[in-house]
Amino acid sequence: MTSGEELEEMRERAPLVHNITNYVAMNVAANVLLAAGASPAMVHAEEEAADFARIAGALTINIGTLSAPWVASMEAAARAANDARVPWVLDPVAVGATAFRTQTAASLLEFAPTVVRGNASEILALAGLGGAGRGVDAGDTVAAAESAANALALRTGGVVAVTGSVDYVTDGETSVRIANGHAMMPRVTALGCALTCLVGAFLAGAPSPLRATSAALAYYGVAGERAAAKAEGPGTFATHFLDALAEIDGKALNAATRMADA
Amino acid sequence: MTSGEELEEMRERAPLVHNITNYVAMNVAANVLLAAGASPAMVHAEEEAADFARIAGALTINIGTLSAPWVASMEAAARAANDARVPWVLDPVAVGATAFRTQTAASLLEFAPTVVRGNASEILALAGLGGAGRGVDAGDTVAAAESAANALALRTGGVVAVTGSVDYVTDGETSVRIANGHAMMPRVTALGCALTCLVGAFLAGAPSPLRATSAALAYYGVAGERAAAKAEGPGTFATHFLDALAEIDGKALNAATRMADA
Amino acid sequence: MTSGEELEEMRERAPLVHNITNYVAMNVAANVLLAAGASPAMVHAEEEAADFARIAGALTINIGTLSAPWVASMEAAARAANDARVPWVLDPVAVGATAFRTQTAASLLEFAPTVVRGNASEILALAGLGGAGRGVDAGDTVAAAESAANALALRTGGVVAVTGSVDYVTDGETSVRIANGHAMMPRVTALGCALTCLVGAFLAGAPSPLRATSAALAYYGVAGERAAAKAEGPGTFATHFLDALAEIDGKALNAATRMADA
Repeated sequence: MTSGEELEEMRERAPLVHNITNYVAMNVAANVLLAAGASPAMVHAEEEAADFARIAGALTINIGTLSAPWVASMEAAARAANDARVPWVLDPVAVGATAFRTQTAASLLEFAPTVVRGNASEILALAGLGGAGRGVDAGDTVAAAESAANALALRTGGVVAVTGSVDYVTDGETSVRIANGHAMMPRVTALGCALTCLVGAFLAGAPSPLRATSAALAYYGVAGERAAAKAEGPGTFATHFLDALAEIDGKALNAATRMADA
Repeated sequence: MTSGEELEEMRERAPLVHNITNYVAMNVAANVLLAAGASPAMVHAEEEAADFARIAGALTINIGTLSAPWVASMEAAARAANDARVPWVLDPVAVGATAFRTQTAASLLEFAPTVVRGNASEILALAGLGGAGRGVDAGDTVAAAESAANALALRTGGVVAVTGSVDYVTDGETSVRIANGHAMMPRVTALGCALTCLVGAFLAGAPSPLRATSAALAYYGVAGERAAAKAEGPGTFATHFLDALAEIDGKALNAATRMADA
Repeated sequence: MTSGEELEEMRERAPLVHNITNYVAMNVAANVLLAAGASPAMVHAEEEAADFARIAGALTINIGTLSAPWVASMEAAARAANDARVPWVLDPVAVGATAFRTQTAASLLEFAPTVVRGNASEILALAGLGGAGRGVDAGDTVAAAESAANALALRTGGVVAVTGSVDYVTDGETSVRIANGHAMMPRVTALGCALTCLVGAFLAGAPSPLRATSAALAYYGVAGERAAAKAEGPGTFATHFLDALAEIDGKALNAATRMADA
């Protein structure tokens, strides 16, 4: 399936995506999902997180703004998702920056995420858990994290996506690079976190996690390119970005996707 | 009083509205209240929620992102609002989707909310508590929820507002339909939650909860119509929507209101 | 150093700013920091707040949406910042409105914030702690809070910034007034809270807290003036405001700064 077909099928399914994401990202992520054609739900209490994960089309977990009660909910939701065969995505924000964050990421990794999405530093830190931690802004390149991504994918049995100026997506055997996107995107907060939630939307009911993830990344990057063409700065960029997500259809996505086997 | 008069009087009072709302909605709701001319406060700790509810012009409670400590605060705030004769609004987000959510909504309903605002599925679920729960996206029409709304209003002794493409507002005896609004509105997250907070602003100090609620809904819908005329998608819509809320005055609201007795 | 030089040096340092701020402000504050050229992190769990404060360039603490666990984190982070000689900023939102808020502010004041930033009513309430509390919207003028600001600065040994239509910044001996800004700014939620975080960015590594704070306030006000020239209401204002923060350079800031010794 092409990226455009993955997008059109996601829109037909209009999946309910259960997100346990950070406070900074919640609103942006919900708007990204709605603009794309999915249905967001933010549910984090331990009393209901597992119940909700079971009825969702996908679950996404982001450790950006952690607390002990949320870690318990994350684990309960990931376990329930696995039991119900609901695909789930892990976003290991700033793993390595503190011991609490690193322990939480290690614990969640045990629940075999369908997809892990992070920047190069996060994937390097996650692949090297047990080794030296790294800061939030290590500034590693995607290329430097490719073999760590491969190793991590083989370890989880899932897909690993490293996002940056050129994205890298791998299941440890097959790998893809996606060259869409724009330099303005990291100037708007939580766009990476919202992308994690969008990957969840593409995963729900999709036959191939690798292709679904790659399509989500291409679609996001193309929307960034369109928004940048209209934007005068990060404020107007964020506004046009949501418009672009809603506007792009499968045909437009296929025409603009820059994806190649790695 | 006309909708326009309700709006002008709300602006003169510029009420302090105490909101215990979900994380996704907090920023949007605060901006909606400020654009409309009210003064928002988001206060949720059990240590201060009751204290704050007593000094507010209105209280609004939204169960979107629940947790056990917040349920305790919600109950304390609702009790304090009743003691101090402060009107309060309940938004039963996704009631029926999980047991935790349903129990919380049932418990809050005991505090006799001045207004309950929800979509059709939520009002049906709330009216039928004790019966079968319903999901978050049941997609029921407003018309299908009208008799449930009437029954719920008679049970709480307050007003029930069912919002959708045509809104329905009732106190169980007198009922009104409002046909303002635009299809873009559900494509922006938390606009329904923010409307609940705006209903709180209109209620504060108003003589008739039914008319105040109806005016808030008409005003919101008219702002949506104006924003849609300028928007190119959900991102620009959200931006123009806040501008429209600030721009519309009583005269413009009266001219655009489409309200009729039901 | 001029305001423009302070801005340029902040951008060269691109500091990591650790914020424990309220839910309403988190997204806005992160976008303000990114647009300005700093790197935001929102970390609030007691398990990691102190660890993170030690590695940050500055810490900011805002009591807008309090809870007991967060108060513990705030205290731990402030203590760690002091130990590691990391400058920190206190934003005493609505101090005086409830006992919980007043006690928390008093406790945090003991950790000698490098800068306290608040509106006139908050600075009056904070300076008078032990006296009568005040509401959130007392509407005091900046001028009425100048001597309270001086007294508070002498007590903390740091800088106090009172923001309003004309801002006042003092270390108890030297004082400055800044006349930049626009009346639209209080119509957008959390812009004051986000300014607190921006003050943190300017403080990180800066030689003079008084000049760094003043420069941050001038820069923010000039961005507000630019945004207002393009805005049609509070929605478009917020969008253009972020663009303006990204666009303004040191030269443009110096040309537009209206700052004078008090």
